[in-house]
Amino acid sequence: MRLELFDRTLGSLKRALRGRSQSWSLAPDLPQSDSDLLRQRIDACLGAPGGEVSARARAAELGRAYLALNPTGRERFLQILANEYGVVDAEVEAAITARRTATDDVGRVAAERQLRAALLPPSIRLLRQFNGLPQGVKFLVDLRAELLPLARGDAALKALDNELRELLASWFDIGFLALERITWEAPAALLEKLIAYEAVHEIRSWHDLKNRLDSDRRLYAFFHPSMPDEPLIFVQVALVSGIADNVQALLDETAPSGDPEDADTAIFYSISNAQAGLAGVSFGNFLIKRVADHLSRNLPNLKTFSTLSPVPGFRAWLDLQLDGGEGEALFTASEAQDLSRIADNQPPGLALRTLLAAPGWYEDEAAAAALKPVLMRLGARYLLEVKRGDLAHDRVAHFHLSNGARLERINWLADTSENGLRQSAGLMVNYLYDLSEIDKNHEAYTGENRIAAASAVRRLARD
Amino acid sequence: MRLELFDRTLGSLKRALRGRSQSWSLAPDLPQSDSDLLRQRIDACLGAPGGEVSARARAAELGRAYLALNPTGRERFLQILANEYGVVDAEVEAAITARRTATDDVGRVAAERQLRAALLPPSIRLLRQFNGLPQGVKFLVDLRAELLPLARGDAALKALDNELRELLASWFDIGFLALERITWEAPAALLEKLIAYEAVHEIRSWHDLKNRLDSDRRLYAFFHPSMPDEPLIFVQVALVSGIADNVQALLDETAPSGDPEDADTAIFYSISNAQAGLAGVSFGNFLIKRVADHLSRNLPNLKTFSTLSPVPGFRAWLDLQLDGGEGEALFTASEAQDLSRIADNQPPGLALRTLLAAPGWYEDEAAAAALKPVLMRLGARYLLEVKRGDLAHDRVAHFHLSNGARLERINWLADTSENGLRQSAGLMVNYLYDLSEIDKNHEAYTGENRIAAASAVRRLARD
Amino acid sequence: MRLELFDRTLGSLKRALRGRSQSWSLAPDLPQSDSDLLRQRIDACLGAPGGEVSARARAAELGRAYLALNPTGRERFLQILANEYGVVDAEVEAAITARRTATDDVGRVAAERQLRAALLPPSIRLLRQFNGLPQGVKFLVDLRAELLPLARGDAALKALDNELRELLASWFDIGFLALERITWEAPAALLEKLIAYEAVHEIRSWHDLKNRLDSDRRLYAFFHPSMPDEPLIFVQVALVSGIADNVQALLDETAPSGDPEDADTAIFYSISNAQAGLAGVSFGNFLIKRVADHLSRNLPNLKTFSTLSPVPGFRAWLDLQLDGGEGEALFTASEAQDLSRIADNQPPGLALRTLLAAPGWYEDEAAAAALKPVLMRLGARYLLEVKRGDLAHDRVAHFHLSNGARLERINWLADTSENGLRQSAGLMVNYLYDLSEIDKNHEAYTGENRIAAASAVRRLARD
Amino acid sequence: MRLELFDRTLGSLKRALRGRSQSWSLAPDLPQSDSDLLRQRIDACLGAPGGEVSARARAAELGRAYLALNPTGRERFLQILANEYGVVDAEVEAAITARRTATDDVGRVAAERQLRAALLPPSIRLLRQFNGLPQGVKFLVDLRAELLPLARGDAALKALDNELRELLASWFDIGFLALERITWEAPAALLEKLIAYEAVHEIRSWHDLKNRLDSDRRLYAFFHPSMPDEPLIFVQVALVSGIADNVQALLDETAPSGDPEDADTAIFYSISNAQAGLAGVSFGNFLIKRVADHLSRNLPNLKTFSTLSPVPGFRAWLDLQLDGGEGEALFTASEAQDLSRIADNQPPGLALRTLLAAPGWYEDEAAAAALKPVLMRLGARYLLEVKRGDLAHDRVAHFHLSNGARLERINWLADTSENGLRQSAGLMVNYLYDLSEIDKNHEAYTGENRIAAASAVRRLARD
Repeated sequence: MRLELFDRTLGSLKRALRGRSQSWSLAPDLPQSDSDLLRQRIDACLGAPGGEVSARARAAELGRAYLALNPTGRERFLQILANEYGVVDAEVEAAITARRTATDDVGRVAAERQLRAALLPPSIRLLRQFNGLPQGVKFLVDLRAELLPLARGDAALKALDNELRELLASWFDIGFLALERITWEAPAALLEKLIAYEAVHEIRSWHDLKNRLDSDRRLYAFFHPSMPDEPLIFVQVALVSGIADNVQALLDETAPSGDPEDADTAIFYSISNAQAGLAGVSFGNFLIKRVADHLSRNLPNLKTFSTLSPVPGFRAWLDLQLDGGEGEALFTASEAQDLSRIADNQPPGLALRTLLAAPGWYEDEAAAAALKPVLMRLGARYLLEVKRGDLAHDRVAHFHLSNGARLERINWLADTSENGLRQSAGLMVNYLYDLSEIDKNHEAYTGENRIAAASAVRRLARD
Repeated sequence: MRLELFDRTLGSLKRALRGRSQSWSLAPDLPQSDSDLLRQRIDACLGAPGGEVSARARAAELGRAYLALNPTGRERFLQILANEYGVVDAEVEAAITARRTATDDVGRVAAERQLRAALLPPSIRLLRQFNGLPQGVKFLVDLRAELLPLARGDAALKALDNELRELLASWFDIGFLALERITWEAPAALLEKLIAYEAVHEIRSWHDLKNRLDSDRRLYAFFHPSMPDEPLIFVQVALVSGIADNVQALLDETAPSGDPEDADTAIFYSISNAQAGLAGVSFGNFLIKRVADHLSRNLPNLKTFSTLSPVPGFRAWLDLQLDGGEGEALFTASEAQDLSRIADNQPPGLALRTLLAAPGWYEDEAAAAALKPVLMRLGARYLLEVKRGDLAHDRVAHFHLSNGARLERINWLADTSENGLRQSAGLMVNYLYDLSEIDKNHEAYTGENRIAAASAVRRLARD
Repeated sequence: MRLELFDRTLGSLKRALRGRSQSWSLAPDLPQSDSDLLRQRIDACLGAPGGEVSARARAAELGRAYLALNPTGRERFLQILANEYGVVDAEVEAAITARRTATDDVGRVAAERQLRAALLPPSIRLLRQFNGLPQGVKFLVDLRAELLPLARGDAALKALDNELRELLASWFDIGFLALERITWEAPAALLEKLIAYEAVHEIRSWHDLKNRLDSDRRLYAFFHPSMPDEPLIFVQVALVSGIADNVQALLDETAPSGDPEDADTAIFYSISNAQAGLAGVSFGNFLIKRVADHLSRNLPNLKTFSTLSPVPGFRAWLDLQLDGGEGEALFTASEAQDLSRIADNQPPGLALRTLLAAPGWYEDEAAAAALKPVLMRLGARYLLEVKRGDLAHDRVAHFHLSNGARLERINWLADTSENGLRQSAGLMVNYLYDLSEIDKNHEAYTGENRIAAASAVRRLARD
Repeated sequence: MRLELFDRTLGSLKRALRGRSQSWSLAPDLPQSDSDLLRQRIDACLGAPGGEVSARARAAELGRAYLALNPTGRERFLQILANEYGVVDAEVEAAITARRTATDDVGRVAAERQLRAALLPPSIRLLRQFNGLPQGVKFLVDLRAELLPLARGDAALKALDNELRELLASWFDIGFLALERITWEAPAALLEKLIAYEAVHEIRSWHDLKNRLDSDRRLYAFFHPSMPDEPLIFVQVALVSGIADNVQALLDETAPSGDPEDADTAIFYSISNAQAGLAGVSFGNFLIKRVADHLSRNLPNLKTFSTLSPVPGFRAWLDLQLDGGEGEALFTASEAQDLSRIADNQPPGLALRTLLAAPGWYEDEAAAAALKPVLMRLGARYLLEVKRGDLAHDRVAHFHLSNGARLERINWLADTSENGLRQSAGLMVNYLYDLSEIDKNHEAYTGENRIAAASAVRRLARD
């Protein structure tokens, strides 16, 4: 009985895109001459008399106007919003004064509410009105995806982005999200999006996708009721025996599928955010824990929950060391010797680079043998010791460590895809989610910057 | 594939009520000796290290503790929350100072965000955590229903209530609500709630309810995804020919049902809020317009949308006039004479009261004839002229007028139920929703306090 | 995406009832003068050229014509169908001859198919066409409900009924039925039907129904895809500890509800056929076994599956014995003495009748004490020894025994409702479904007419 | 609330395939030595005591045994069923005698029922028991797909197949089928089957499929409740302006999609049976009419319903004429001259063959110009005049003509795919479904063998 309501009164942003007329329009690149008209329409949305319904109808018109602009016009639109519809200083000051001079609690509380209202920029008050519009939430998420790159060097746009992120964070509160398992029975229109959104290990074809939805695989996603057809984030899981150490083996379409009832380990091998406009609104944390919880209740044989993750910052960090001339300090004498020997006697830093630059180096046994001890040790050191502020430098490491996972194992030649070699030098890491240790680990990491790691990994870094 | 997630990690408030143990508990009436334990647990929720998941688990424990208290204990709990977890003055002052002393825009914006955060009471920060819990939103709605009566004479509780109302208003934003039509095919568990929640014209039995869901009737409700089994507000509609003027006729279970395709008029004869804890969070406005919109698209023959509404403030206002001795001024000479004549020559004010106090007076032709001109005129005057501040005194009138409806007609002996006689002296009003006039009417009413009314009603008031 | 198809081409029987015109019609009581028109329309359905679609459209018209007739007209309609559209003897003879004279296997097989076709009466060929019509299957089920009482004394109608029963039995094959659990979440429109259809222990109100759907109760029904809104048969189950011996206690709305996880016994206390027109098409057998299977998988604590059933034939049989003067032989000397003593020294047979005729006799301790040994023993004897042909005389006993259940226990004062006293003298029986014995018991009963019974019941009968 | 019932009692064929043990098994190729065991198990199914439940459990075991056999074993299994479990002559004779000697109507009717029962082969009585088993209906459909090729030269298997087809035809009666529209929102698992089952114009990729589900396309399928995941037959429709004359243009993935609201014509360009085991059970007829009906109600602008169909028998017929030396009579003098001229002066029949054998001939303007008049005329003549018995020789033509469609237009170079050239010499036909003429056309074709055709097509054939 759920009604599809395309409110005639409100107008639907969606239909609008197919050409519904409105009484005004802007030139595609929003020239100076049109900006007054725009300001006037924004003011109409914010201040106009008329019920909330009309206000939203005006917001919808504004949304359609935005969508009809070209990139230049859109940037100008956002600039006007960011620069001219921020907090009004006088209102803030008036509220602060009112609070100071309040003679009783009631007055003070009222002034505080007034102050809070004054601190909410009109731009955000405007954008909130999109919540009630068909497709309005998706509109804002996509608008933020366009705002993000523009905001990098621009304080006003950055402030607008901060506010918008906070607004979206409140709408996309974990309490509103629904976890769903996605199978080969899911709508093709949804599966098609997964293929497009997968960010870690590219899904190469529908057949590849089907393989990832096989009986010994699981794929879970979070959804929001205002964007029911759009996954927000999704995680892919392999149900196996023992902790997996190689992602190509895991994704091999020709491998036979196992019986999920026999598996003792769940490997989270890919987590992808699907909405660029929700950057900084985090739910990956909840996703892994909920999925682990759901799996453990449905497949009681599962005892171990672990990721198989890349180390995307490793190579960039390593190159920086080598560039900085600190290369030599990275190796032991015998490592330096080995590297030089198999690389035409180049100095070890250069030798390392030369070896890694050779296509298919991992299939060259001699090279791989020389590289393995060096890269494994440096990988462990990078993960345990290199920081961004007080926290782990590698963003994937930071994500799992702040979730309370433990750095369990580093795997050699675990991802030999082009991407895996370029970013992680082929290394992959198992972060272990031990449900009974998660809180303690999280606390140690966020409170005291202590990283939970298996002793084997610590030893590796010390060698 | 939507998963029923009763997160073991989080714990489910619902299951909890069936006896899940926690490591601490409070005596039912929360004596002084237990309040320190409570404070400690609240602090644990607010400040404790550990991920958001643990924070929510602690919130769930607090929720279970609240539910285990008796009314005395609950009031004490709320008092502690309201009085000890409000805005911290020093934090506000620090942020104001930071803002004053900021040397650039970035600093100022940061200080403003800090200030906004400081203005959010910790009590509300705590209650927000319930959003993610199973049944957590319903818990807060019900908690507010208990808070409301306590808050009447208590500034701290009142402030807490204000904050909570605002929190719920943001969660129950119209954009999140789904409109559904409810039919006799709906789950009995849902229909049972309608019987319990109907506030205007009591549903006397399942048979009465079935009659109100007949082919020429409609019932629509708003739902929220976090409380999918609970209607928030619902409206009942009769599809008829011409504007109905009598609610008993409308609800007559023995009357034959008409063909909805033949109807030209939709009569909204009852709107009931179903959640006491959502008082002050308004969606009735949207409900009527959406339903009118939905109906007009599905039944193109419908041309007129009108309510059949009570005048619940009329009798109370009238009695006040009579008490205040202003009674005599209410009547014309001939009315005064008529009233006295049929009421044993009592003075007209007393006569009016005596006549209205007689059980079944509306069936006494002489009495009804004498009362009709008086009550119709006074009803019109009450609706058009009596104000609460600048706005209509009668709350039903205010609701529809602020929605943009027009006061179209006053109907004599239109509701002769006990309630209808006691509150409205049997009068009922048709408020007309003319979609093309709604915005204009709304603006005139909220901007200039002008009430849109049919000229016949105006004449009636002037007589 | 399932489409609601009310085929314009075919016409919908349902809409038809609301007045769709057709080019011909019959007087309500189908006078002689109209029967030729009817024959002509039937012939058009059976023999007419045109695709199957037109044939069905004609069948729909015929259906509407039937529904427009009054009872007299309908009986005449059925008589024409039964008497004039039976098997055509000449066609049968021709096929038999063709079979006799066939010279090879191919010819013989063809003749056999021809013979089988000739043996299918045209009346049934006509009625089959209703299968494809909206509401057509329900139409046939209801038509048979009207046919059944008429067929009792009429060989032609009886033969038509036999054929129709066989047709419906093939359509309602157990393989097409879906078992569903019905809860308080089910549509009110469906629950309303359960109230109407309950045949064993009347459902007195919606509250009574809700009590029967409580957490420690279960209600299951079979549905057919062609009549998705109509339950075919339903069974009510109580989840309790130990085998229940009193149905009033079981249905007590004020009793607290138990935890289904704690129950060790499922009591089937009511089985009702919902469709009179499906009499003789049996699925009760499957229903109990499927429900037992479903319950035992979902609630592993359940160890015992038993009915609590009436003995509806007991009093009628007993009265017959007393009428027939065989009364004296029914009692032992001391029983006879006891009965006479407390019934004013009437002879024991008469005493028994007098005692049972007294309203509320079961609350009279002396009477009840005298009656108990007599009625318990006679009840046991009735169930074990009195036969209809070779099988149990009591139809409820026959149903459960042929399902393979065991007569486990007879309970005294187990149903003191008016109906329970009038039919069963207050006795109720537990038939035990022991899944490991069902096949053996069934075989013994249907093959050798041996009744499986607990030794206590056998002893009771022997006393 | 629909329960997934994998009855433990019955056993599920599906689970069984994953290894459930049974107490007996057959060697894969069913050697002579095992056939007695098989007979014994079949007899157990047919004659054994025990309830219907046990009978079905035994049938399930038999089904599992069949599925475990290899092709040789399966053929032997079917031979035993066909040859040893046919109609028992003595039972038929006994029933015929009983019917002859019946002294009254009741006796005669009883004998007729007995005769009908005797005419139902035990093999079919056995196979009916699969109806109630999980996956049982799909099992029988697939079994028949294996039986069909074996039955071609074998009278006993042919007879078994006839019976099985009749059984399936009664189960798959149109009244049980549900029409569904399939969109890009459908489960990938279902769409994957469409790709596999499409028989007319191969679906080359998921992208091709998505294009066929675009906003100006429709795809409808029939489903049966016992095989809910399996389409039975599906039709693909293009919504266009004017009757389409070229299938490559219609399927061009790069063409822009039109607005379905603007279309005036629905082109049925592909109908595929999805279940080989349902050959001879026809529902294509209903499918087209229901879809036309559904479309015309949802898109009132649609005025024309037409197919774009191949002429799959044309080239084979043409080759036969040329082989038979009748080639010369096929051409007019000037045609003969033209053909010879551009084909190195070969005689016209040989010239025709040579030209058609040249790859890409249709792109050779001179060849195409010479071939067009000849092939268009011969195509028209083939469709209108060449018969199989009294009916159209081309099976696609026969299908649409017996549905009541009209041969509207023959299109030149309308399908230049390899298949289209090989079977139809590139011709395609529009069969027009004019709902007001369908019955009349159907009658003329099936009654009098008259083909409804546009006059232009008739003229073409006469030229």
